[in-house]
Amino acid sequence: MSLLVLKFGGTSVGTPERIRNVAERALRLRGDGHSLVVVVSAMSGETDRLLGLARELHPRAEGRELDVLLSTGEQVTIALLSMALEAYGCPARSYTGGQVRILTDSAHNKARIRSIDDSRIRGDLEAGRVVVVAGFQGISEEGAITTLGRGGSDTTAVALAAALNADECRIYTDVDGVYTTDPRVVKRARRLERITFEEMLEMASLGSKVLQIRAVEFAGKYNVPLRVLSSFEEGQGTLITTEEGRVEQALVAGIAFNQNEAQLTIQGVPDQPGVAYRILGPIADANIEVDMIVQNVGADNTTDFTFTVHRNDYEKALGILEQVSGELGARNVAGDTKIAKISVVGVGMRSHAGIASRMFEALARESINIRMISTSEIKISVVVDEKYLELGVRTLHDAFELEQEPTGQSTDR
Amino acid sequence: MSLLVLKFGGTSVGTPERIRNVAERALRLRGDGHSLVVVVSAMSGETDRLLGLARELHPRAEGRELDVLLSTGEQVTIALLSMALEAYGCPARSYTGGQVRILTDSAHNKARIRSIDDSRIRGDLEAGRVVVVAGFQGISEEGAITTLGRGGSDTTAVALAAALNADECRIYTDVDGVYTTDPRVVKRARRLERITFEEMLEMASLGSKVLQIRAVEFAGKYNVPLRVLSSFEEGQGTLITTEEGRVEQALVAGIAFNQNEAQLTIQGVPDQPGVAYRILGPIADANIEVDMIVQNVGADNTTDFTFTVHRNDYEKALGILEQVSGELGARNVAGDTKIAKISVVGVGMRSHAGIASRMFEALARESINIRMISTSEIKISVVVDEKYLELGVRTLHDAFELEQEPTGQSTDR
Repeated sequence: MSLLVLKFGGTSVGTPERIRNVAERALRLRGDGHSLVVVVSAMSGETDRLLGLARELHPRAEGRELDVLLSTGEQVTIALLSMALEAYGCPARSYTGGQVRILTDSAHNKARIRSIDDSRIRGDLEAGRVVVVAGFQGISEEGAITTLGRGGSDTTAVALAAALNADECRIYTDVDGVYTTDPRVVKRARRLERITFEEMLEMASLGSKVLQIRAVEFAGKYNVPLRVLSSFEEGQGTLITTEEGRVEQALVAGIAFNQNEAQLTIQGVPDQPGVAYRILGPIADANIEVDMIVQNVGADNTTDFTFTVHRNDYEKALGILEQVSGELGARNVAGDTKIAKISVVGVGMRSHAGIASRMFEALARESINIRMISTSEIKISVVVDEKYLELGVRTLHDAFELEQEPTGQSTDR
Repeated sequence: MSLLVLKFGGTSVGTPERIRNVAERALRLRGDGHSLVVVVSAMSGETDRLLGLARELHPRAEGRELDVLLSTGEQVTIALLSMALEAYGCPARSYTGGQVRILTDSAHNKARIRSIDDSRIRGDLEAGRVVVVAGFQGISEEGAITTLGRGGSDTTAVALAAALNADECRIYTDVDGVYTTDPRVVKRARRLERITFEEMLEMASLGSKVLQIRAVEFAGKYNVPLRVLSSFEEGQGTLITTEEGRVEQALVAGIAFNQNEAQLTIQGVPDQPGVAYRILGPIADANIEVDMIVQNVGADNTTDFTFTVHRNDYEKALGILEQVSGELGARNVAGDTKIAKISVVGVGMRSHAGIASRMFEALARESINIRMISTSEIKISVVVDEKYLELGVRTLHDAFELEQEPTGQSTDR
């Protein structure tokens, strides 16, 4: 008999009918002998409805009272799901974050979990109850309601699974697993049976919005096996786990991409120590997050410095850069919002050379010009013209034969 | 500087605009130097919306999980009102029932308040904050969310006023006070400046739905001056207080009436000890509440026994009575749903004879037949044919000259 933590997002509990479906799914798992803790989000649309009300009363609603407001969304769902379970004769008990005692720091609207008291939940599980917990929320030392920020329900589920030492944490979503790339771009994209925490982090941060990054980090840190699967269809989904448990031997797990970035370049900066700091310091001070950074030493003792930011921050960053450019005596400032980032991700590349050249060769064959390159241990990212996004992704998906199930072609790891 | 507890019901906080109006009213009172605790209900329609969701998932949603669900209604309002106050630069802090620590028994859906921890609220008041508290809800010893049942927000306000030793508890509603009778029936009905707790209890239980009975009982018990006034208009409303503070010297405070009852009669019951119990025992066992009870000894050693129940319980009660009738060897069972109860209420009648005869004389003058009579220390109730309701109420309102301000016409009390 195993203990499972299940998490259902807003779409999966968006209507009473769907909540009943969640109850039925839980009943089947319970019938198979599993003990269950079910974490739920607010019904889809509810959080936006509450935010709308808040904005009518305060132009910049935030902080303590916003958490009091938003936390009601999940509270409604836990009550309804518990009722649905009870209607089937299944004993159930709901808990808000505060009632479990999911203790967080006091950073309202983006709190972090500090500790979880598992005693009440364990008592209910021993009594044969299904435990239903509100995601996304906790309580501070001072007894104030806190929320973890959007998508925090995944984190709640993983943290509960870690605290309860659960056998698996299952995140039910509107997709049936993690794919080698976005199936809307590459029709032959393949659902992965397994992926490592690290690969998943790279895939998530690069734009595959299946899971919250924090939840994956948390799962990796506490080694909680995490499974992503569909709320609406049957299927095994994708198991996210450590490398040890890995059976597939693919070099590359998937192709991630991101279309939300913009590129900024400052050219002909006199090369001297501290240039990077003098450029990026003011950017950071303006609370703009920088993603890729590339610096090339040019000919005449000057350097070209390029980085990418979120498109929403482009205008602001450009303004800052123009001022910095003057101070540094740079030749020119340029920028472009019509770019796309494409990344090849896989723990296999740690031990395998040749991934990068295979990538660049494939792109060259299609005459796709690479504007920036950045690498890490398990990924290689390139920036290309936005118009090449789909072609680039398809080309790389083909080049690494991702449509095929891996069959142990590289057993030397 | 006085401490006021204000309570605003669902209609008064039914839209963001109305919540803003509540904030503005609180700001004016704060500007006058009052310390404020504001108790609010769920936005109008919200509780019904939540109940609708619940019924879709459980045909008889009740108990613990229903309280988890319904308590979100007030939680939304406290957050929004606090935001509205903060938008005006007024420091505010919201508390759910559990956060205040309004401790109740564990009777879900109809819990009773056991104690209130006033330490947090006092701390906030001392810090100059407006404290906003969710009505209608509390927490059990076991940490479960409880609700006091519909209308329980009034009780929350009064209980807080008692715990904080507030100078006044103000209940803002959609009427501008307590009237001598329903102004829809008698146009010249007059708003009372003051009324005693006992009179208010009789008025409320007889159908004037201005205040919850439990809230008035609570206020009377702890001697909390209670004021009913309009959310939407200015005005002094009606102060409900003890007899000592009473200035008006009216014999009769008002005319209450109730059209929701049905009458049941069992005739020709052989008169022997225990008859009343054998008739009403099975009625009570069926959870039917009985209001008026009248028994007359008839001629031939038999008795006629009449009582009233809520109309919703009429069919059920009639069925029980027909069975009891057979067991008791009664002659006949009769019933009527087309009745109305009219009551004259006033503490003045304690020390004044002649109220009853004046009442009966007035009704006789209009040829209104009285079917049942029941009296208590401060009220006289009659049951009449439903068709005479309006005429009877108007007649009695005139007979006791309730349209006129009392001018100390009876100073011998």
